[in-house]
Amino acid sequence: MIITTNQKNLKEGLGVVEKIVSRNTALPILQNIVLKTENGRLKLSSTNLEIGISFWLGAKVEEEGEIAVPARIFSDFINNIRDEKITLKSKDNTLLASSNNYQTKIIGFSAKDFPIIPRTKEKPFNMVEAGNLFDLFNTVIDATALSDTRPELAGVFVNFLTETVEAAATDSFHLAEKVLNKKNQGLKSIIIPRQTAQELIRVLSDLSGDVSISISENQIFFSSPDWEVVSRLIDGRYPDYKKIIPEKWLARVLVNKKVLEENIRLASIFSSSIFDIKISAKEKGLKISAKNSDRGEISSFTEANLKNEPFELTVNYRYFLDGLKTIPTENVILEFTGEGNPLILRPEGRNDITYLIMPLRN
Amino acid sequence: MIITTNQKNLKEGLGVVEKIVSRNTALPILQNIVLKTENGRLKLSSTNLEIGISFWLGAKVEEEGEIAVPARIFSDFINNIRDEKITLKSKDNTLLASSNNYQTKIIGFSAKDFPIIPRTKEKPFNMVEAGNLFDLFNTVIDATALSDTRPELAGVFVNFLTETVEAAATDSFHLAEKVLNKKNQGLKSIIIPRQTAQELIRVLSDLSGDVSISISENQIFFSSPDWEVVSRLIDGRYPDYKKIIPEKWLARVLVNKKVLEENIRLASIFSSSIFDIKISAKEKGLKISAKNSDRGEISSFTEANLKNEPFELTVNYRYFLDGLKTIPTENVILEFTGEGNPLILRPEGRNDITYLIMPLRN
Repeated sequence: MIITTNQKNLKEGLGVVEKIVSRNTALPILQNIVLKTENGRLKLSSTNLEIGISFWLGAKVEEEGEIAVPARIFSDFINNIRDEKITLKSKDNTLLASSNNYQTKIIGFSAKDFPIIPRTKEKPFNMVEAGNLFDLFNTVIDATALSDTRPELAGVFVNFLTETVEAAATDSFHLAEKVLNKKNQGLKSIIIPRQTAQELIRVLSDLSGDVSISISENQIFFSSPDWEVVSRLIDGRYPDYKKIIPEKWLARVLVNKKVLEENIRLASIFSSSIFDIKISAKEKGLKISAKNSDRGEISSFTEANLKNEPFELTVNYRYFLDGLKTIPTENVILEFTGEGNPLILRPEGRNDITYLIMPLRN
Repeated sequence: MIITTNQKNLKEGLGVVEKIVSRNTALPILQNIVLKTENGRLKLSSTNLEIGISFWLGAKVEEEGEIAVPARIFSDFINNIRDEKITLKSKDNTLLASSNNYQTKIIGFSAKDFPIIPRTKEKPFNMVEAGNLFDLFNTVIDATALSDTRPELAGVFVNFLTETVEAAATDSFHLAEKVLNKKNQGLKSIIIPRQTAQELIRVLSDLSGDVSISISENQIFFSSPDWEVVSRLIDGRYPDYKKIIPEKWLARVLVNKKVLEENIRLASIFSSSIFDIKISAKEKGLKISAKNSDRGEISSFTEANLKNEPFELTVNYRYFLDGLKTIPTENVILEFTGEGNPLILRPEGRNDITYLIMPLRN
């Protein structure tokens, strides 16, 4: 391989593919990034066997070729040089990376030793803008189950419907749902593993433009002209989570999100080992309290607007904070749906996000 | 104790005394901060037995008293509330901290169980501005010895002379010296333990104003009207380090500090287990190179201005980076003082900082 390319573009591409390179892995070859000439461009790719990423960038190709190089060494070098033009030559599993002021010889491996990253063969069944895809995953990810006892709950459920794309996640203690209004051609539902969804979020945070989605052999492909991400899917049936969302509320509170968050954090200092805080909604506002036999206790007042009757419930403050993170508006709506029923968090003036917290027993 | 005080002032004071509170300590009482009324003010104090800090702030004292409270819980609470006025009441080893929107009960301890922090009895022999004191310690700290084989080298040497205060540190592989021009009344030299100097730096970074310095019974006191820090001193004779600083240079290089730092970092990617990089000063600039049998090699070019003959030497890149951190000017001067002799780093156009690096054998 002999190519010339631009430092900024190479840095951008490395930033994307490097995100899934694990530094501690049983398979050391996975600490590498593969460089390969392909149709007059340079392809960078990496995988952790759960997810694979390819990124293409412009390059002047003088001689075709491919090589695997240690991700950290190569990107540490590329990210920190000031020169604009970079020449990459591979020779006997060594990469010579040079520019105006720098010459390096990086010891690499044969690209043949690197796992093959599958490419999409199916036609895409749908197209979603990268930022919207990011929002769908990012809003619900924290509600996925951490344990694998019910494998389907350890993932993000995505349902492509005629007029919407819905993402949801729940571990049965809390539940998050995000709805994107968008007409879809292909109607499918899938479950993406938690870890993969997390890595997708990191990758998508840097990308924009339309993303084509296709599925084949229990794998999902997210593709754009410049990059492609492939991930395995969780095989299973997602529970009918909509049934758990109460249709009616008994009381409703409107409160400033930032102030509420601060006061929950303050209460958390004094919460016990089950992370419990008590919320009492009164005429004038919210009283938030917590008690811990070793540390002491707290009670705080938060201005809020209550509709209907006062109520009281005990919740896990970590779920509450996770829920508030999903709310993009200045104020948040809390819906009380009855004794022993979930508390619902919603943004003000929008109906795309629903976040449920199951109460703890008093 | 019953007092009323201001949240901002209390937060500032906690920020200072909390800096030396260790979270993991064999003596759990040291995780506390002592609150005590004293001459119409509130005194906060903490210690880790090596160093002790007291901080006084204005308060309306209704009832005298004292209590020890867990530093983290108390400051987590105080730092995050929005109310301006805070009332603190101690009762049966419990602190009631309350304000407009918050009521807490924090379980504490008797202040009697807390170690006594010694107060200065001697008259101060000197006065240094807090920022200057910070500079003295901060410039040389990284050159102190990490091992205790020669206890006096595991500290910062401070020498109060008629016209200057000089701080120095060395572990015999590198050496840093910072000179402050200032007339002194008391002429003394002291050695402050590395760890204490590190904590002093953290404390001084937030403070300003003149600091009085006094010594009694192998302890040093840094005092101002609002705070006092006491630290133990290292007993011993500091070596005559001035002898090690070569008086003449054979060649001199002027180079942009930021670019040099970047290129040393780039070389460090490829350095071997002894952290060696090779510097070759030539007519046109510096060649910096490194080689590692597992990773590969690098050679870079840095524009620089050479006076006298070209030279070449191998140094530990970590000492070089530590040295560059002490240089406050845009350009740095490198002085070559002969084969096997130290390389000297100096700021451009100033003579207050001298940084020596002993070369490695090629």
